[in-house]
Amino acid sequence: MKDTVTMPALMTKEDVTTLILIAKKKTGMKWEEIAEGIGMSPVWTHSACMGMNTMPKAKAEALVALLDLPEEAVSVLEEYPTKIWEQAVPTDPCIYRLYEIVGVYGPTMKALIQEEFGDGIMSAIDFDMKITRVANPKGDRVKVEMSGKFLGYNSW
Amino acid sequence: MKDTVTMPALMTKEDVTTLILIAKKKTGMKWEEIAEGIGMSPVWTHSACMGMNTMPKAKAEALVALLDLPEEAVSVLEEYPTKIWEQAVPTDPCIYRLYEIVGVYGPTMKALIQEEFGDGIMSAIDFDMKITRVANPKGDRVKVEMSGKFLGYNSW
Amino acid sequence: MKDTVTMPALMTKEDVTTLILIAKKKTGMKWEEIAEGIGMSPVWTHSACMGMNTMPKAKAEALVALLDLPEEAVSVLEEYPTKIWEQAVPTDPCIYRLYEIVGVYGPTMKALIQEEFGDGIMSAIDFDMKITRVANPKGDRVKVEMSGKFLGYNSW
Amino acid sequence: MKDTVTMPALMTKEDVTTLILIAKKKTGMKWEEIAEGIGMSPVWTHSACMGMNTMPKAKAEALVALLDLPEEAVSVLEEYPTKIWEQAVPTDPCIYRLYEIVGVYGPTMKALIQEEFGDGIMSAIDFDMKITRVANPKGDRVKVEMSGKFLGYNSW
Amino acid sequence: MKDTVTMPALMTKEDVTTLILIAKKKTGMKWEEIAEGIGMSPVWTHSACMGMNTMPKAKAEALVALLDLPEEAVSVLEEYPTKIWEQAVPTDPCIYRLYEIVGVYGPTMKALIQEEFGDGIMSAIDFDMKITRVANPKGDRVKVEMSGKFLGYNSW
Amino acid sequence: MKDTVTMPALMTKEDVTTLILIAKKKTGMKWEEIAEGIGMSPVWTHSACMGMNTMPKAKAEALVALLDLPEEAVSVLEEYPTKIWEQAVPTDPCIYRLYEIVGVYGPTMKALIQEEFGDGIMSAIDFDMKITRVANPKGDRVKVEMSGKFLGYNSW
Amino acid sequence: MKDTVTMPALMTKEDVTTLILIAKKKTGMKWEEIAEGIGMSPVWTHSACMGMNTMPKAKAEALVALLDLPEEAVSVLEEYPTKIWEQAVPTDPCIYRLYEIVGVYGPTMKALIQEEFGDGIMSAIDFDMKITRVANPKGDRVKVEMSGKFLGYNSW
Amino acid sequence: MKDTVTMPALMTKEDVTTLILIAKKKTGMKWEEIAEGIGMSPVWTHSACMGMNTMPKAKAEALVALLDLPEEAVSVLEEYPTKIWEQAVPTDPCIYRLYEIVGVYGPTMKALIQEEFGDGIMSAIDFDMKITRVANPKGDRVKVEMSGKFLGYNSW
Amino acid sequence: MKDTVTMPALMTKEDVTTLILIAKKKTGMKWEEIAEGIGMSPVWTHSACMGMNTMPKAKAEALVALLDLPEEAVSVLEEYPTKIWEQAVPTDPCIYRLYEIVGVYGPTMKALIQEEFGDGIMSAIDFDMKITRVANPKGDRVKVEMSGKFLGYNSW
Amino acid sequence: MKDTVTMPALMTKEDVTTLILIAKKKTGMKWEEIAEGIGMSPVWTHSACMGMNTMPKAKAEALVALLDLPEEAVSVLEEYPTKIWEQAVPTDPCIYRLYEIVGVYGPTMKALIQEEFGDGIMSAIDFDMKITRVANPKGDRVKVEMSGKFLGYNSW
Repeated sequence: MKDTVTMPALMTKEDVTTLILIAKKKTGMKWEEIAEGIGMSPVWTHSACMGMNTMPKAKAEALVALLDLPEEAVSVLEEYPTKIWEQAVPTDPCIYRLYEIVGVYGPTMKALIQEEFGDGIMSAIDFDMKITRVANPKGDRVKVEMSGKFLGYNSW
Repeated sequence: MKDTVTMPALMTKEDVTTLILIAKKKTGMKWEEIAEGIGMSPVWTHSACMGMNTMPKAKAEALVALLDLPEEAVSVLEEYPTKIWEQAVPTDPCIYRLYEIVGVYGPTMKALIQEEFGDGIMSAIDFDMKITRVANPKGDRVKVEMSGKFLGYNSW
Repeated sequence: MKDTVTMPALMTKEDVTTLILIAKKKTGMKWEEIAEGIGMSPVWTHSACMGMNTMPKAKAEALVALLDLPEEAVSVLEEYPTKIWEQAVPTDPCIYRLYEIVGVYGPTMKALIQEEFGDGIMSAIDFDMKITRVANPKGDRVKVEMSGKFLGYNSW
Repeated sequence: MKDTVTMPALMTKEDVTTLILIAKKKTGMKWEEIAEGIGMSPVWTHSACMGMNTMPKAKAEALVALLDLPEEAVSVLEEYPTKIWEQAVPTDPCIYRLYEIVGVYGPTMKALIQEEFGDGIMSAIDFDMKITRVANPKGDRVKVEMSGKFLGYNSW
Repeated sequence: MKDTVTMPALMTKEDVTTLILIAKKKTGMKWEEIAEGIGMSPVWTHSACMGMNTMPKAKAEALVALLDLPEEAVSVLEEYPTKIWEQAVPTDPCIYRLYEIVGVYGPTMKALIQEEFGDGIMSAIDFDMKITRVANPKGDRVKVEMSGKFLGYNSW
Repeated sequence: MKDTVTMPALMTKEDVTTLILIAKKKTGMKWEEIAEGIGMSPVWTHSACMGMNTMPKAKAEALVALLDLPEEAVSVLEEYPTKIWEQAVPTDPCIYRLYEIVGVYGPTMKALIQEEFGDGIMSAIDFDMKITRVANPKGDRVKVEMSGKFLGYNSW
Repeated sequence: MKDTVTMPALMTKEDVTTLILIAKKKTGMKWEEIAEGIGMSPVWTHSACMGMNTMPKAKAEALVALLDLPEEAVSVLEEYPTKIWEQAVPTDPCIYRLYEIVGVYGPTMKALIQEEFGDGIMSAIDFDMKITRVANPKGDRVKVEMSGKFLGYNSW
Repeated sequence: MKDTVTMPALMTKEDVTTLILIAKKKTGMKWEEIAEGIGMSPVWTHSACMGMNTMPKAKAEALVALLDLPEEAVSVLEEYPTKIWEQAVPTDPCIYRLYEIVGVYGPTMKALIQEEFGDGIMSAIDFDMKITRVANPKGDRVKVEMSGKFLGYNSW
Repeated sequence: MKDTVTMPALMTKEDVTTLILIAKKKTGMKWEEIAEGIGMSPVWTHSACMGMNTMPKAKAEALVALLDLPEEAVSVLEEYPTKIWEQAVPTDPCIYRLYEIVGVYGPTMKALIQEEFGDGIMSAIDFDMKITRVANPKGDRVKVEMSGKFLGYNSW
Repeated sequence: MKDTVTMPALMTKEDVTTLILIAKKKTGMKWEEIAEGIGMSPVWTHSACMGMNTMPKAKAEALVALLDLPEEAVSVLEEYPTKIWEQAVPTDPCIYRLYEIVGVYGPTMKALIQEEFGDGIMSAIDFDMKITRVANPKGDRVKVEMSGKFLGYNSW
């Protein structure tokens, strides 16, 4: 039934993600190189390519040029995404470990942040993140650095 | 009915957490001071005081001395905890923001870790964390640094 | 078993809420009067009395004086709360209607906020709210006014 | 198997939403302009375009004319929608903040509404909403104004 | 720990429900008789006795007199309840059948109500219900009659 | 892959529902008229057209004739449906209000039914329902009448 | 706080179940013997003793006499129970296997019942069950026999 | 995108179920007749046709011959199924009643089985079932007979 | 209210578990030693002490003697447990890893078991398990050995 | 709408799994033979073929040669999978039994592992598994051997 009404085409963020993955495979570029190619960080770049963040026009154009994507992709990359994840508890072991850290250390993070700053939160919006490799004789380590603006609760 | 069978007493981790919170309130010490008092980091110290990590005997004794807790608390602090959290999706805004970061950036963290290290995970067991305040003219920021050993999947 | 270890007493936020409700019933004061009595808004005052917000020391002292609560309540009112709600979907009809508004109009609110401000959110932390009665010949109306700081997503 | 039975075509509300989004992109109109173009508010207009509210015939015709949609869209816009949302707890941060406000302030809103009006609810049906930008030197604020008819519980 | 802070007593709606059930058992009255005794319908009376509706003062006084409850119960019966049910899907077969009727016939009820009245709902607030026995040679039947005010969606 | 095995066609209840909706739109008939046209009640007729009840052969033939459906639809309408609803808690406001009535008044309905009839249930199988409009100067009301056979629990 | 209001005692079905289990342990009777002692089947007797079915007065009196329970238990056994189970999916392996049978064979049971009887259900109210041991050289088998009245759907 | 990689065809259990239903409709055979035609019971036959059990080769060949299915169906019927049901709590009333029986009588069945056999379970694997009609002047009854091997827990 | 009916005492499996843990702490015995003391394996012994398996009389008596428990504990250890776990997805990291193994390798285990044995399962009832330490220069390993009887599906 | 944007093809892990199953059926090889053919264990081989583990290049090439798969499959087999399972509680009986073992014996496994190794976990990443048949006169048994590196919690 879907095809009975003829309608103009609409490229989605999901389509653009697929095009990026194909281009990445073909060119053999790493995320770090793509990020460098558009002058942004790898975390933000990957997230925006996955459709979980919006790209400013200049960055979208740079990406389209870098990966030779169709022009229409620029405006799609600029759209403001609706961030949806379907698994309230993620099953992939690499992502689950992050969830587990929030479960185990969440109340501790809250207590220490609030003891230092007062009642409030670390913003997940005015936020940035970096992931690096730290060499270690007992086995290299993943280092994750997050930084978010502290926001204090209002009283009125 | 519960009280009809007379049984010897058993101090629980929950009891010890309450005793620590009372002592902390009375002495006015901050978590950072308590941590310093036993020669450990604030994140680990708070977590162990909440009953989410086990304390080596020497540290448990140091804590009991520092906060003037009953002797029996030493062995309770040494017990290996069962880590339970009841809210699959945490409601407290400060903890929820951390959950949200995993939801939004989890797949990105996975992609970047694995592109750098190969297929595997960042351990949440051989793991440490530090939380610091970063001064910023637009509003101070919370900095979270996590480090976990990379563990690669086996093939056999 | 719970009572076998004798421990010092600890007044909780839940205890203070009960004491406030008893005092309110005895004095016959309305929330609006209590709020006025401590020089704050009714929404914030009720929320803090329910243990869902922290009270600055001066306000906690004013409340304790106004309602003749025990002195110990001051420091409990100052504690930073852990905000927990147990029903992901609230059943009480008055609260459910608010949930329904988010379900029906949430995507609309997102679209209009973001079209006006760019990609980001309305803060629920740097936030205030007012509830008023609006006379109407077809039946009086409840007016809810919320205001939250706009926070734009970072790109880095 | 779906295509084995030949059946006449049926345009759905989802199809019309897609057509509207394409037209909006092509014309570059904002929701506010579309709303003005049909003489209605932006909140209601967006909601009806998303298929979450029914459009009176005159408004549907005005929209079809304004955006140059196919005539068949008029009757589809007039249909009474079935309002479905799939995430009991929304994940998009902009919508989640609204959910969080209901979680944190829901019991407070109930208490204040009922203290003023008696036992009952604010209607989510006989309801309207407005979203505006409020300039503020510390960062502009989103203002949300909702108004719903008070409905008191029956006793019989 | 709960009993370490001495606090004044507070009678709850749950306590009053227990007192009513005990009085009902002792006097052998049926709900219909209790309802008649206070001049209200059985459905509303039972619901208010269960703490799911508020009682106007006169009715609360009549109930207290009828069942010889303590005076304090009057103000508790007057309180505005928070309506909570813990089972999203009820397990008791008698209540489940009602849930099943909503599952099977809910879309039908919506279609017929809206075809007759326009887009809107049957209010569950301005609402009443009656349950009667209908004799039938093939087995007596339960008759449920509900009536709620129609509320049409606003457009603005 | 789905289309690699060529298989004969099978018309489903969902297909027939679509055909009925198209015919209804084309003819402009109301559910009440369709019901009258086959000599049944509107509630049952709508439910059977939605695929939530089976139609006796004569009624299925009458419907096919009335709406000019393909002959094959007769046997599909006669099939015994599997009744599935996907939302344990319905989100559409019109259907949610019915769910809410079960949540609020379910225990009351159980108590009154069982006090009158003994332990048992109102059948949702040997069951019928009628929906009517009741004029009222304060706003017309929806009247819902349900009747189900009482079934008493066995003891053996 | 619970104990601040002095109230008369109320024996619950849960209390009676405990009393029955104690008496059963003391007397060493099996459920089959208890059932025989009151002239009913073991399945029904156990279920009523667990508070999942109501006992006719004569049977309640017989049970009270047989197990030397307090007189007050008679009226409690006569009360109509609210049937609640807390695990939507039971974890106990013996009960889970029954749940699994419904999952695997439920659609089959529906198809065969309805092919034989027409559209309808096997009643779980006008219902009885028997459990017996069947000797078998390869290992004895549990035999479960259920019988429920067929109830056909109404059309009206 | 799905169709861009050309791949050989693979008939699934779901395809075979559809083919069986079409053949059954065309031939007008009942499940009982199909079962008889391959020399097996109706419960097992239906279940295997639904893809919830594997068919031994001879039976699969007999079925393919009986219903004139394509040869390829034999090996598909022989495959070992993955048994999946999507509704933890089934909504179809005929299946829900079976679920309800497990909820209400599950603990009773466990108690009686274990009192007779010792700690263990009735197998749902080494298991069979029969469904028959029992004439009854008050309305015919469905009789369900299940038999499963008792399996006792190991101690080691 | 709970204490208003005086009732004889009943020791529960939960009580016995507490008594065992206290005795274990006092004596300093390891689970392996306790198991050896009663001539059983550590896995089974721990499980039975936690109330997740029944103990044969001789073993219960041996345990009571070994740990100097009250005589009444013997019959409690002999009771057949109802196995309940409250977290469908366990949060403790040590238990979660086992859950994760089932999620990742479950379909593989099924495929290999069934390819070897035919359609069926590995019993979790006629089952045993052993846990040992395996020295390894890269870090010692946990070895888990499970063995369960294969049970093939019936066809009938 | 999906097909309106023409895009290059992308073979997925799901596609490769289907190709492997078709080749396996055609060649009649068992998993054990396929595993042997590429010089790896059956558990790991099956898991990688299902897309739940990544294949080193050499093994992917060996598999493609062994089963005559298209060359493009090599790079797809090398991709790092996202491990997703959709049923938090698996319904297939063969997999459920494994889940049940974790539910019943999980706390026991934790206690014994931690008593032997200290606080920590058995890795599910640096992990291997073997499944074998053990002949037994009372019925052959499935033997599952798992081995994972012990990882101790950090304190810092």
